[in-house]
Amino acid sequence: MRMYDIIKKKRDGEELSKEEINFFIRGVTDGSIPDYQISALCMAIYFKGMTVRETCDLTYAVRDSGEKLDSSQIQGIRVDKHSTGGVGDKTSLVVAPIVASLGVKVAKMSGRGLGHTGGTVDKLEAIKGFQTTLSDEEFVSQVNSIGLAIVGQSKQFAPADKKLYALRDVTATVDSMPLIAASIMGKKLAADDDCIVLDVKTGSGSFMKTVERSKELARLMVDIGKNAGKKMTALITNMDRPLGYAIGNSLEVIEAVETLMGRGPEDFTEVSLTLAGHMLSLAGMGTVEECIQKAKDSISDGSALRKLIETVRAQGGDETLIEHPETFEKAKYSHSVLAQRSGYIASADTESYGIASLLLGAGRNTAEDEIDYKAGILLKKKTGDYVQKGEEIAVLLADDESLFQAAEETLLAATEISIERPVEEPLIYGIVK
Amino acid sequence: MRMYDIIKKKRDGEELSKEEINFFIRGVTDGSIPDYQISALCMAIYFKGMTVRETCDLTYAVRDSGEKLDSSQIQGIRVDKHSTGGVGDKTSLVVAPIVASLGVKVAKMSGRGLGHTGGTVDKLEAIKGFQTTLSDEEFVSQVNSIGLAIVGQSKQFAPADKKLYALRDVTATVDSMPLIAASIMGKKLAADDDCIVLDVKTGSGSFMKTVERSKELARLMVDIGKNAGKKMTALITNMDRPLGYAIGNSLEVIEAVETLMGRGPEDFTEVSLTLAGHMLSLAGMGTVEECIQKAKDSISDGSALRKLIETVRAQGGDETLIEHPETFEKAKYSHSVLAQRSGYIASADTESYGIASLLLGAGRNTAEDEIDYKAGILLKKKTGDYVQKGEEIAVLLADDESLFQAAEETLLAATEISIERPVEEPLIYGIVK
Repeated sequence: MRMYDIIKKKRDGEELSKEEINFFIRGVTDGSIPDYQISALCMAIYFKGMTVRETCDLTYAVRDSGEKLDSSQIQGIRVDKHSTGGVGDKTSLVVAPIVASLGVKVAKMSGRGLGHTGGTVDKLEAIKGFQTTLSDEEFVSQVNSIGLAIVGQSKQFAPADKKLYALRDVTATVDSMPLIAASIMGKKLAADDDCIVLDVKTGSGSFMKTVERSKELARLMVDIGKNAGKKMTALITNMDRPLGYAIGNSLEVIEAVETLMGRGPEDFTEVSLTLAGHMLSLAGMGTVEECIQKAKDSISDGSALRKLIETVRAQGGDETLIEHPETFEKAKYSHSVLAQRSGYIASADTESYGIASLLLGAGRNTAEDEIDYKAGILLKKKTGDYVQKGEEIAVLLADDESLFQAAEETLLAATEISIERPVEEPLIYGIVK
Repeated sequence: MRMYDIIKKKRDGEELSKEEINFFIRGVTDGSIPDYQISALCMAIYFKGMTVRETCDLTYAVRDSGEKLDSSQIQGIRVDKHSTGGVGDKTSLVVAPIVASLGVKVAKMSGRGLGHTGGTVDKLEAIKGFQTTLSDEEFVSQVNSIGLAIVGQSKQFAPADKKLYALRDVTATVDSMPLIAASIMGKKLAADDDCIVLDVKTGSGSFMKTVERSKELARLMVDIGKNAGKKMTALITNMDRPLGYAIGNSLEVIEAVETLMGRGPEDFTEVSLTLAGHMLSLAGMGTVEECIQKAKDSISDGSALRKLIETVRAQGGDETLIEHPETFEKAKYSHSVLAQRSGYIASADTESYGIASLLLGAGRNTAEDEIDYKAGILLKKKTGDYVQKGEEIAVLLADDESLFQAAEETLLAATEISIERPVEEPLIYGIVK
């Protein structure tokens, strides 16, 4: 088998066999296929696409390219939620405790933030003492004892994806449906959960800009997962505005804790309950409606919050911060961003909001950057709200006052104020099963 | 300027600016753009094409990527012919002496053979003593004194093309019209002739398999040359069968000499005279018809043959071999290939004929291979001829009898014998000016 022939075949629009796809991913993993052939094939896939069968084979080859979690020691049904990434997306901090508090296991491996999107691991590390690295034994034992553990990806999951993504990122071949699906699902399937709920973010703050493309991606990923024997559901959710009002690591933990206390923002609470409901339902806990009610109850009776406190304690974190979120250390400086004119906030470029938060020190430009956990943005107004000229639309928080100007300019440029009230967009565009 | 943006722009079907194309070729030449980005762009160009303007800019950037011939010392009008490569194509050995014998300068830089196609430099080196390397001064001086010199490409012409071609060859991106045109014309224009006649080969022995594609390529290359101030003509010629009857280096020199003696094969003589006529006409020697007549006369009065003898002598070759071509050293062994059945030769896969010759030692698999100048194939029958079962269709020549079997099998498999007489195809499909 020759890589040349595989490139040519895809270039000519033909379907690659499972053997050809395995040969390709093996060669990517062991370095025997040169980068220039990998990028040429990615570009051919960009133009010619892949059938569902090819995409499944690609996903499974990526999944099998590295280590996997040995889940055999974990008792009970394991469910996970995966978000395609957004701004102010702290749902994992809420849905994982809800689901675990209702007896379904959550053995969560999360990522760090990069660019305009945040990462659950960074948010948890904003809790003083919280350890995001556990040994396999500790991880399994914690999941078995309290039902929930959240760690960073320490394993060499899907190394082929790491290599492929790095090349796609510099050759304008990221934006290909089968390559995106295989990348996300290849890693996800390596964690070997029983049930997976995908949160496919749509809009200006996500990398899928239209609902149609998001639905297509969701359909493809659900089929790939089902084909691998997993129970799958995908939600298409709105990322045309940040979720909740907090962007930045400790700010988002505080908002998540307040949501578990029953006083979270309406949009964020609704998305969290819906995701949790679908996770519980997939795990056999009842209909989605019944499960959403159970999720609500777990908030009102305090069991979900207690599960988060228990988890923070188990992983070495300072649980008093969760009990009293107002005690989180604050950034040294704050700066109010004021509306430049009166009118409705007609639209907000959410990616730019993420970048503004990054500029304040809350995120990373490169994987090596250090994060200021206290930095970020507290929104006061969101899309659809009416503001008076000079009214506060957001508060910026940072340890360095010199960072405010660029972040403020970015935020203002991304916020369109209009005399016309914008059409209200749904929070959840659809569900793919 | 970033290579990523250039790839993305072309991927999205937009037209690249001259500055972007220059940035790309500069980066290819100096190695600052990594191979994986070059191959991704080549694949995007494969799918999205290039406008004539882009292709011209690409060609000129390739031309300007290395050294050029300083032609200012050569007196008179210089004309060249360039073939896109075929099997048994010894036209340069005939047309260059014809044109030079009529007072038009030919300062020819030729290539070596690779794969199934031969090269003029190899053929000339089959003449004992012939030097294909001259200093710039010797080259210019010989062109000025006798009107003709033929050397190998010693200069670093168009190094960007060398790098690009090597990558395209392993990433299935060779077959792209703008990339082919820029590759051929970029090198050709670096030699800075006044007039160029392109011989675009079409059919099974060439890399352009259809007349339509060949015409398209010819049109594009003619426009690129004209736009650079050159006088241009392209002929689309038939390479669905070998030209003449000889394939192999000294065998082809002998056939060329016999053609200059007025007893060459009909097809080869016709193509040679037509090419020479167009070259002379471009150089201002009259209409094409008048020039073809002049070319014929230069054969019948012996002046073209004398010009070849003069050239061989000037470059150190044994001129008696040209005067008495029957004295060329012969291969040790010969082997007759016999028709397996009676009928018409309906078609012959010419590329396979070239490969059979290569298998006998007449060609190169890699640029480092040594050539046996005596080896090759003498065809006895060609497409359209009727053969009896057991009749000789070709004679194989080699210094090693063990090479015959594979070459014979290749030749027989490539030769289709049918009871139906095939439709006669023209030798010259068209002319693009």
